[in-house]
Amino acid sequence: MKDKLEKFNEYREKISFHKHVITQFQWDMQTQTPSKGFADKVEAVTYFSSQAFQLQTSEEYGKLLKSLLKEKEFEELDEAMQITIKREWKEYEENKRVPKEFYEEMVRASAHSQKAWEEAKQKKDYSIFCPHLQKMIDYRKQLMEYTRPDMEVYDAMLDAFEEGMDSETIDRLFGELKAGLVPLLQRIAKKTEPDRSIFRGEFPKHLQQEWSGFLLDYIGYDKEAGVMSESEHPFTMGFGPKDVRVTNHYRKDEAINAMFSIIHEGGHAIFEQGVDEQYEKTALTEINFLGLHESQSRFYENILGRNINFWRPIYIKLGEYFPQFQQISLEDFYREINHVAPGLIRIDSDEVSYSLHIILRYEIEKAIFRNGVEAKDLSKLWNDKMEELLGIRPENDTDGILQDTHWSDGSFGYFPTYALGNIFDGMFLEALTEELGDVDTLLADGRIRDITDWLHEKIHKYGSLRTGKEVVEHVCGKEISAKPILKYFEDKYTKLYDL
Amino acid sequence: MKDKLEKFNEYREKISFHKHVITQFQWDMQTQTPSKGFADKVEAVTYFSSQAFQLQTSEEYGKLLKSLLKEKEFEELDEAMQITIKREWKEYEENKRVPKEFYEEMVRASAHSQKAWEEAKQKKDYSIFCPHLQKMIDYRKQLMEYTRPDMEVYDAMLDAFEEGMDSETIDRLFGELKAGLVPLLQRIAKKTEPDRSIFRGEFPKHLQQEWSGFLLDYIGYDKEAGVMSESEHPFTMGFGPKDVRVTNHYRKDEAINAMFSIIHEGGHAIFEQGVDEQYEKTALTEINFLGLHESQSRFYENILGRNINFWRPIYIKLGEYFPQFQQISLEDFYREINHVAPGLIRIDSDEVSYSLHIILRYEIEKAIFRNGVEAKDLSKLWNDKMEELLGIRPENDTDGILQDTHWSDGSFGYFPTYALGNIFDGMFLEALTEELGDVDTLLADGRIRDITDWLHEKIHKYGSLRTGKEVVEHVCGKEISAKPILKYFEDKYTKLYDL
Repeated sequence: MKDKLEKFNEYREKISFHKHVITQFQWDMQTQTPSKGFADKVEAVTYFSSQAFQLQTSEEYGKLLKSLLKEKEFEELDEAMQITIKREWKEYEENKRVPKEFYEEMVRASAHSQKAWEEAKQKKDYSIFCPHLQKMIDYRKQLMEYTRPDMEVYDAMLDAFEEGMDSETIDRLFGELKAGLVPLLQRIAKKTEPDRSIFRGEFPKHLQQEWSGFLLDYIGYDKEAGVMSESEHPFTMGFGPKDVRVTNHYRKDEAINAMFSIIHEGGHAIFEQGVDEQYEKTALTEINFLGLHESQSRFYENILGRNINFWRPIYIKLGEYFPQFQQISLEDFYREINHVAPGLIRIDSDEVSYSLHIILRYEIEKAIFRNGVEAKDLSKLWNDKMEELLGIRPENDTDGILQDTHWSDGSFGYFPTYALGNIFDGMFLEALTEELGDVDTLLADGRIRDITDWLHEKIHKYGSLRTGKEVVEHVCGKEISAKPILKYFEDKYTKLYDL
Repeated sequence: MKDKLEKFNEYREKISFHKHVITQFQWDMQTQTPSKGFADKVEAVTYFSSQAFQLQTSEEYGKLLKSLLKEKEFEELDEAMQITIKREWKEYEENKRVPKEFYEEMVRASAHSQKAWEEAKQKKDYSIFCPHLQKMIDYRKQLMEYTRPDMEVYDAMLDAFEEGMDSETIDRLFGELKAGLVPLLQRIAKKTEPDRSIFRGEFPKHLQQEWSGFLLDYIGYDKEAGVMSESEHPFTMGFGPKDVRVTNHYRKDEAINAMFSIIHEGGHAIFEQGVDEQYEKTALTEINFLGLHESQSRFYENILGRNINFWRPIYIKLGEYFPQFQQISLEDFYREINHVAPGLIRIDSDEVSYSLHIILRYEIEKAIFRNGVEAKDLSKLWNDKMEELLGIRPENDTDGILQDTHWSDGSFGYFPTYALGNIFDGMFLEALTEELGDVDTLLADGRIRDITDWLHEKIHKYGSLRTGKEVVEHVCGKEISAKPILKYFEDKYTKLYDL
């Protein structure tokens, strides 16, 4: 057993070095690789991905994992190690069914597809991206058929991003959500619009960057264990708890978007930074339950960041960075950051209509993988659904199907996790209020770090020991439901919009 | 032969992927790795360096190289391939003599030493760095004894950074330089100092960054084949001609330092970007002749950048970025950027005293490797030599021995290449003037790109086909000498200081 464990740790180390390299390349490609250098980067990341894949699918490794699982002493290993071995075995079983050439092709195609998406988005030309998207659909379908032949393709994709979730459960939760949100939105729509032009102006990028840094610090992001950079679409990328990186993007004529983007990414990063040190070099620092992950970013962004009390201790400081805010009352600012109106862009959308953007994508993904709808028909389908669900139609694909990066690397089944995150948040908010007291008071007192500590203690430190579903059961003691988040919406917006 | 070449290309590709990864990590570590993430990065770079080392020293590879060299058809291969195989063989022969454990230890120790140097420099405390420096001295000495047992240790180091150069040649060239510079400096010292305070002020970093970007573009750096970032000490790092990156650093209270740093790094980068495309994936894109490399950066920084005519077409633009310069005449600006006065910091020093900073380092390196002087005695030796050569004494080690990064990773023998670059530049300036005409006129007409084209054609496109010495012979048709650069100094400063 001891020899086998040693051998296993050697393997794990090699694999983790390769994963480290792949993450490193991805970080570089998404934040700074120059256009002429891109193809070489793709070649290099393809090579190392393929090396990692070979390591993880070698027969020797498979035998080692299998025999470790059969050992009597296996049950005596600590929980983290047991889970690590089990997950590696699961991944081994899935991966060994994937032909090497197929895998290499797919990795290379993904990199090119991401680049094509960037170009298409910039040029507002879906035709540049469309053939790549079709390839991604075909590759991912094929991949699921290789890796999870016993599962329905789209359920397999959903499970890959949030273990334990299937379309039956999601249909139920999204059904609850839709039933609550549609009437709420209609009631809000009857209200008159405030003057929003006072939030436009000139907001120099370097000041927005500094202010983003301040916000990260304020919510409890550890700057010695990460960096902030810039990219087309904000994201978080970690190399384990000691180095979790975030990016932001900036608009010249308004400053609010970047603020909430960075609080959102900060939430993701605080989760990863908070994983217990004892789990280092185990599978528990890799958190592939994206709904759970998203629940943390959205908790910071929405539940905390869009609460008026979040801003009470720092609103003066905001005015120091951007004097324009000195002329705006905190109450007007609060209304603006919670302004509800159906818009075309998911990442700009308000809390209330956000989930409808997700339901749109969920329905399109079901159309692709259940009904065989092809990439060439997706631009129209997108626009039709947008009209149906939100009552507006994009004038170009950059405001429509090209707005998000996710599908460009084949991440189908990813979007639903965003709304799952919202649903988890309703549950967590209930539990936190019971245990720590009223969130409004905590925030108004500048005690946001107490909330971060609670989240660390209840959720973050376990890393990926439990799935999102299990975390909800542990922290809240009940089954997952959309009712708490709906109650939060109802209470907040009834008051805010005087409904 | 065909099979062997195919096998060789496979090896080359693998090795180049590993080198790519190592460069990628080094770039990250020097520009953005957070402190808590540093140790993991060191582990990863150590692993991949060791993998690369194993590839390059495998017996199979050695046999392959040897048998390729013996093939009849070897002479029929194109020149680039022949050189590539010969260099790989030379490196193989050198590396195979190095024990794997020693190499790994050294790589790891270098990374830690660089980090210690940063801390020591920040805290002005040589004692933090001293034990690391002693280790670097011992490791590098040992490394040379492994790799080049037939050469004297310090000559081996010099040759490693500029092939074909030894201390005998350098003693001659530096002797010429010293003999010319010392009296010139003395004549200048008798002149009165102008008021330099007008160049102090507030220069926001983001504007300095934008202006640096403008300068890079102006001199011919291709932004689609590189990025500009920030680091403690400016540097250039390339992944082949399609991705050559530069960094800069910024001071809040003056803007001139960053301008010349970026022109300098831009010169390095333009060299690497200019290597002929046909040499891609051969050894010719790796330019390890650092004197030649430095000649290009210093050509842009000094010969061009410190010429008044460089600024004529863009001086108005400088005033748009930094209004302070609108109050300063071009002539006063020209005097300032060529202000001669012995200072403590090499990278801030003027063209004339610069070489004395190098001669100081050259003499210390000789003392270490010829006379066995130890790290513990180097702070004092540094300060003594500074007083002897430049007449001033550092008050702390940050302004003394801790100022440069080079020794922190064991790059002994590197410094002399800086002054060699100056000497090469004198030769190149003579040739360029003969062929293209007067540099003053070219610059005043804004035709700096014509100069870049000439350098591309005469020097850059060949990559590392020829050593610095050979380039001088090809471009100038004569043996290397310090006289042309001394004549340039004499002419320029006699006029500027009215000597």
